[in-house]
Amino acid sequence: MDQTSVFDFVLRKNADLVSFALGLPNPDLFPVDELTAAVDAVFKEPGDVYQYANPLEELRGHIVRLMAMRGVTCAPEQIVLTHGAQHGIDMAVRLLCGPGRPLVLEEISYTGALSVVSATDTPVHTVSTTGSLSEAVGDLLRAGVRPGGMYVMPEGHNPLGVSLPEAERRALVALAREHAFTIVEDDAYGFLQYDQEPRPALRSLDDRRVFYIGSFSKIISPGLRVGWIVVPEEHVDRALVVKEASTLEVATPGQYIVARLLDRWDLAGHLGVLRREYALRRDTMRRSLEAVLPAGTPFSCPDSGMFFWVELPEGVDTGELLEAAVAEYGVSFVPGDLYLSGPVQAKRNYLRLSFSCVSPAEIEAGAERLGRLFRDRGIA
Amino acid sequence: MDQTSVFDFVLRKNADLVSFALGLPNPDLFPVDELTAAVDAVFKEPGDVYQYANPLEELRGHIVRLMAMRGVTCAPEQIVLTHGAQHGIDMAVRLLCGPGRPLVLEEISYTGALSVVSATDTPVHTVSTTGSLSEAVGDLLRAGVRPGGMYVMPEGHNPLGVSLPEAERRALVALAREHAFTIVEDDAYGFLQYDQEPRPALRSLDDRRVFYIGSFSKIISPGLRVGWIVVPEEHVDRALVVKEASTLEVATPGQYIVARLLDRWDLAGHLGVLRREYALRRDTMRRSLEAVLPAGTPFSCPDSGMFFWVELPEGVDTGELLEAAVAEYGVSFVPGDLYLSGPVQAKRNYLRLSFSCVSPAEIEAGAERLGRLFRDRGIA
Repeated sequence: MDQTSVFDFVLRKNADLVSFALGLPNPDLFPVDELTAAVDAVFKEPGDVYQYANPLEELRGHIVRLMAMRGVTCAPEQIVLTHGAQHGIDMAVRLLCGPGRPLVLEEISYTGALSVVSATDTPVHTVSTTGSLSEAVGDLLRAGVRPGGMYVMPEGHNPLGVSLPEAERRALVALAREHAFTIVEDDAYGFLQYDQEPRPALRSLDDRRVFYIGSFSKIISPGLRVGWIVVPEEHVDRALVVKEASTLEVATPGQYIVARLLDRWDLAGHLGVLRREYALRRDTMRRSLEAVLPAGTPFSCPDSGMFFWVELPEGVDTGELLEAAVAEYGVSFVPGDLYLSGPVQAKRNYLRLSFSCVSPAEIEAGAERLGRLFRDRGIA
Repeated sequence: MDQTSVFDFVLRKNADLVSFALGLPNPDLFPVDELTAAVDAVFKEPGDVYQYANPLEELRGHIVRLMAMRGVTCAPEQIVLTHGAQHGIDMAVRLLCGPGRPLVLEEISYTGALSVVSATDTPVHTVSTTGSLSEAVGDLLRAGVRPGGMYVMPEGHNPLGVSLPEAERRALVALAREHAFTIVEDDAYGFLQYDQEPRPALRSLDDRRVFYIGSFSKIISPGLRVGWIVVPEEHVDRALVVKEASTLEVATPGQYIVARLLDRWDLAGHLGVLRREYALRRDTMRRSLEAVLPAGTPFSCPDSGMFFWVELPEGVDTGELLEAAVAEYGVSFVPGDLYLSGPVQAKRNYLRLSFSCVSPAEIEAGAERLGRLFRDRGIA
């Protein structure tokens, strides 16, 4: 199945379906009352809200303070607003990569990064996700590859559900410095860390070699399409050219709504709610999967983000499994092959499960259905 | 002056300044009451408005009907929503052009198209704007150039203030068919034709060789950042890949607001108001310029769009003139060199005047100030 048909398939409305496929943030956790108050304030005096707007200074000020929560010191001038993280990935690849300046990509990576590669015809070198990432990148560099950029998701990797250990972060940044390439850090899930003091962003380790991508989609609302990038100084001018060429500026209502919301809102309190609610679902999914997965099945349990990654036995084709899962068992997931490139591309036995849009009770029910499916198919 | 510093300069707030520089649509002509009603309807039940949304079917249905007003028959599936016309230009160039597939561009063209060329490093061949456009393009093709696309603004050319005659339109489409390139038609001003039965879009002449770019910015609100492209069938799949890679989807509130507005609104009546109001300003500017420009100065008077293009005598540098115009005379414009590429690039004696954001009385006052400036500088 190609990506579009898979998503058409798993997004079909079906009241009885438990969807572990949807990776969207949970709309029940949107701060709707506070958003409504912000919307009322913004549209009460609609003067400028319908006109083009330059980036609102107060919004960039709020983002500077958010970045401090991720351990990052930056100036408003380094922040370029985007239409969400996807726009940031596209801009990063356009700025950093091209013929002779390939992108380094994990062989299991976010579909949004893969679609940018496809849309830009960017040359790619993949690295394995099974061992040390920095060692794999080091091997590539020693083999003579001279990358323009490397895309990574150090927190809540989509789909792998892992976070990068501190030593790996330092090693990657050291490689980027030594070999003069830029790390593209997709931190869409950086504010959703569940288990301890939040790890700071990669960008906190280096200003010049890390291109940071942030988004309000997972912590406020994805529909507003407001995100940002924090650009190394040397790329700021060019980033503004690419930004203006691609879309002029972010929609004015979105800018104002986010700015008014952050003016008066207890964001830290909201993040606490999000972390608690998602962690509850994560814990439920881990327990439920342990109970139903074939013994010894490797799977990741995320301590940030929204995804579990499961490796079923060799020979299982999760794309084939999906059709039966939806039609006969009332549960869905995303087959893992959508996220693959490079040597692992032919593998069909991975699947991604998301807990973001389901309740704990639904997670238990859905896992039980998965378990029945696996047993009925003799996957053990 | 580079583009950014010019705009910083001319956008400076100054109550006494008459700005002929601002090319924005006039906010006094935004349908604010109807927009407010649509906003109220959209946010009253905020269910889906904060979540990601696929393109709303009812919005694409409205666009199909709008396209019929431009003489174009198309299906909803051919319409891809964009973050405004700029996003459409970027997508068109990314889809159609690249190494070995240059873009044909008029040597005086829209800055947004020039910024896409810069951001994408697209190879360009320029054609003269002084004679027949189709003959100039024909010469290029006979010289062996094999373009991927050609960017044109057949209505309300920004900055030239001209519209393409019917015979030229047919000749360009014939060339595109014969030589298998795609015309990128920027129709941002297509709904703002003042003087007669509106001319249909180029796209009405050919489905396969015209990539149409439309926008709600000039007829509803630019701040919402909602536009669309009508893509030739063979480019639809790739257009969806580039669209998703660049920004996923247009902001949900913008989609809903425009859809709810068009559900119940007298758009034709609103377009009548816009045409009457802009034509009044256009007429005032023509009369005022005739009174104050040095005798024999060539200038265009637009019958669509918002721009006059003036050619002052050789030797005049409009960039230098601007500083005095703003500081000493209280009037601004955009120096023409920002719009130039190719052989005319060194010319400094053009300027662009916009009447969109000024009242008829301000137009008369501003033109009188320009006249004084010209006399004081001995430009005659």
